[in-house]
Amino acid sequence: MDVYTLAKAIREKKISPVEIVGQTLEAIEKQNETLNAYITICAEQARREAAQAEAEIMRGEWKGIWHGIPVAIKDMIFTEGVRTTMGSQIYEHFVPAYSATAVTRWQQAGAIVIGKTNTHEFAYGPTGDVSFFGPSRNPHDPRKITGGSSGGSGAAVAAGLAYAALGTDTGGSVRIPAAACGIVGMKPTFGRVSKYGAFDLGYTLDHVGPMTKSVRDNASLLQLLAGYDENDPYTLTQPADDYAALLGESVRGKVIGLPLWYYQHVEEEIKQAIQQVAAVYRELGAEIREVDLPGIDELMQGQRITIQAEAAAIHERTLRDHADALQPEVRERLMDSTDVRGYQYVQVQQRRGQLLAQFNEVFREADVLLTPTLPILPTDIGQRDIMIGDHPDGVRPALLRLTSPTNFTGNPSLSVPCGFSQTGLPIGFQLIGEHGQEAKLYQFGYAYETATGAIEK
Amino acid sequence: MDVYTLAKAIREKKISPVEIVGQTLEAIEKQNETLNAYITICAEQARREAAQAEAEIMRGEWKGIWHGIPVAIKDMIFTEGVRTTMGSQIYEHFVPAYSATAVTRWQQAGAIVIGKTNTHEFAYGPTGDVSFFGPSRNPHDPRKITGGSSGGSGAAVAAGLAYAALGTDTGGSVRIPAAACGIVGMKPTFGRVSKYGAFDLGYTLDHVGPMTKSVRDNASLLQLLAGYDENDPYTLTQPADDYAALLGESVRGKVIGLPLWYYQHVEEEIKQAIQQVAAVYRELGAEIREVDLPGIDELMQGQRITIQAEAAAIHERTLRDHADALQPEVRERLMDSTDVRGYQYVQVQQRRGQLLAQFNEVFREADVLLTPTLPILPTDIGQRDIMIGDHPDGVRPALLRLTSPTNFTGNPSLSVPCGFSQTGLPIGFQLIGEHGQEAKLYQFGYAYETATGAIEK
Repeated sequence: MDVYTLAKAIREKKISPVEIVGQTLEAIEKQNETLNAYITICAEQARREAAQAEAEIMRGEWKGIWHGIPVAIKDMIFTEGVRTTMGSQIYEHFVPAYSATAVTRWQQAGAIVIGKTNTHEFAYGPTGDVSFFGPSRNPHDPRKITGGSSGGSGAAVAAGLAYAALGTDTGGSVRIPAAACGIVGMKPTFGRVSKYGAFDLGYTLDHVGPMTKSVRDNASLLQLLAGYDENDPYTLTQPADDYAALLGESVRGKVIGLPLWYYQHVEEEIKQAIQQVAAVYRELGAEIREVDLPGIDELMQGQRITIQAEAAAIHERTLRDHADALQPEVRERLMDSTDVRGYQYVQVQQRRGQLLAQFNEVFREADVLLTPTLPILPTDIGQRDIMIGDHPDGVRPALLRLTSPTNFTGNPSLSVPCGFSQTGLPIGFQLIGEHGQEAKLYQFGYAYETATGAIEK
Repeated sequence: MDVYTLAKAIREKKISPVEIVGQTLEAIEKQNETLNAYITICAEQARREAAQAEAEIMRGEWKGIWHGIPVAIKDMIFTEGVRTTMGSQIYEHFVPAYSATAVTRWQQAGAIVIGKTNTHEFAYGPTGDVSFFGPSRNPHDPRKITGGSSGGSGAAVAAGLAYAALGTDTGGSVRIPAAACGIVGMKPTFGRVSKYGAFDLGYTLDHVGPMTKSVRDNASLLQLLAGYDENDPYTLTQPADDYAALLGESVRGKVIGLPLWYYQHVEEEIKQAIQQVAAVYRELGAEIREVDLPGIDELMQGQRITIQAEAAAIHERTLRDHADALQPEVRERLMDSTDVRGYQYVQVQQRRGQLLAQFNEVFREADVLLTPTLPILPTDIGQRDIMIGDHPDGVRPALLRLTSPTNFTGNPSLSVPCGFSQTGLPIGFQLIGEHGQEAKLYQFGYAYETATGAIEK
């Protein structure tokens, strides 16, 4: 049940926040030992807030669809008075004195933070299986990864241990676990959501984004989060669009671009799933057109150099003072990242504007791009090499390949579930839009969901 | 004679552009072999333009004080159809197809480009003695450096081989030769003058700036150059102030800050000269106050890391393809610059805004800062080590020490001559203002000039 549906029941007093929080805490108790989605559970505080929400709603002071809804916050995002670990031993006992802007906004809308979700240590990894608190595990098969870095958020929402969650996305960390766990994840336009209170990984690549059960929930949550924040100099000053405005609008006559680059070295089963997505859109009257993306390889390279230099800038002191406390794989990756040269970073930043403009040219002929979110199915916990057909690849670069380009360009990118593999593992597709065009992505995502019966209308 | 004075004579038809250009070409012919100020001399074109200017002026179409004035352009700045070498063998035969915006604006005001002035190769050095075309030499003693990198411009204006010149300034390259040659040089606020058509050295540190015989000429020239340029995304969109507005205004009651950091390891003779400047200002009614500049060492370090990473980004390909054609010292410096790490550059850029704000706090208690421009007198050509009192230093870091901080912060900084050493070498003082406060710097500079009789009123 998505929040949209649940909120209706709450408003009609068919179910109360106290019941919902109670059920969710029960589900957490039952499943968290297996899934390891939560690092910290705020049971008492959540019950207290639920009682308060219930009283408010009984008094007729309903704040909107998030009122009384138990939600999860990735443990890279600060929560006042609640431990925030970054998935690292180094912050094992760190309790922030303030909350991230995104958290505060959500709470002001009535959401109840039920816990802090597991993350790849310092969000520096797309597998979600390297955390001081152990790997998060895929609800669809606990031997498999959730994807990362927002793996705990993905698992929690997918398994019903929260109705929505916040993630952060620097190379795909919202969309990768969304696809791998079978939920909806949005990386908005760069600057759309304040990053104040989110621990930095790559300051020109980081995005805070919503992870939800449905597209309409996602649109509703982004609406709350979006907007200028004087505490984050990177937030956009233009007001956000109305993200619900196009929900239910037909996609007839719209053009969906299939960028061929995104379909290289993709597992056959995933390719087929995306072809079926395209078929659904074709039936809805959209035109499917193959498109080119010149410069995409340079974008990929640019994203890699940028994240390495920026992550090493954040963690140089960690490497000096706390190297032993880091997970070995993250330590190694950070050490490698210090090798990037200043001139490489400068060259990339100087090219960035041009590359971004070149990328956006595709939107002259397409409303949105349709791609797989991931070229592979969720792999085994700890697995690092994979064959994609006869193409040998690393699991890490494969997971990042289709999501990271738009971290570099800042384009909004939405991952939507589109069924399962024969082995029962989720598959997701990605919609990419021009900067500021989140409403269009939601329009397309919602059109797919309703056409396929994925949600009750 | 400054341009202000000369232009009056032109306007009154006491002297004609043809005569002036003829005299200037004669002076070049006589002195350039010694001074090596010019790499390229545009005798024919200058004579042709002089004749045209003369005709225009005879017809009563006087364009303003630059009309018919022979001026020089640093050979880092593109001139359409005129060879532009960057002081390097690599560009020995390079003829740009377009002119820098600064050149075009000056020409439109009637200035006559008489030649292209020598530069430290690729502007990457403050001594001015490393160029494929040989060192430029100080008009006050040809055994001594002009300072750099705009050394040819400094020598040309000081020796009367041009009435004004354009330089570029990334760590002090306008102000250093201005001080060393005894002329006025301004590094404006970052973004005030278009850099379009100026060869990059450090893209967040580069400034184009005017080099003139007097402060009022400088103000007049900056007025021409200043303003938004769609070809340079870094130019400021706010219109420029009226730089002549405060010329002649009293400095009585104003506060001049003496930042102590700038007076460490300064040659005694220079310290005394600056004390005399302070005494002049005190007599004019200004208050002199010692001020602190916390964070200045970090600024210095930031400027160094930034210029290294950015210069290496520009020249990485040069190092790959044309290393042998580079001057050995510049090659070595560029090679060292490729070693700067990406994370160092990122850390510096992340701190930059704060450091800049911290620097500007001094302007709450001071209108301008007064410092030496250089801590040392012009050294011998090729000299690389120096004793400042009992403090051993490198010539290069010493020359850059007092000018480079405001390349990093972007504050306007004006160098004004204030007499000579016992050995007859020029000394300059530097006035630093808050962003956008060029008019105030000109007010102070002009007050000094008129009080000391340096110019005819």
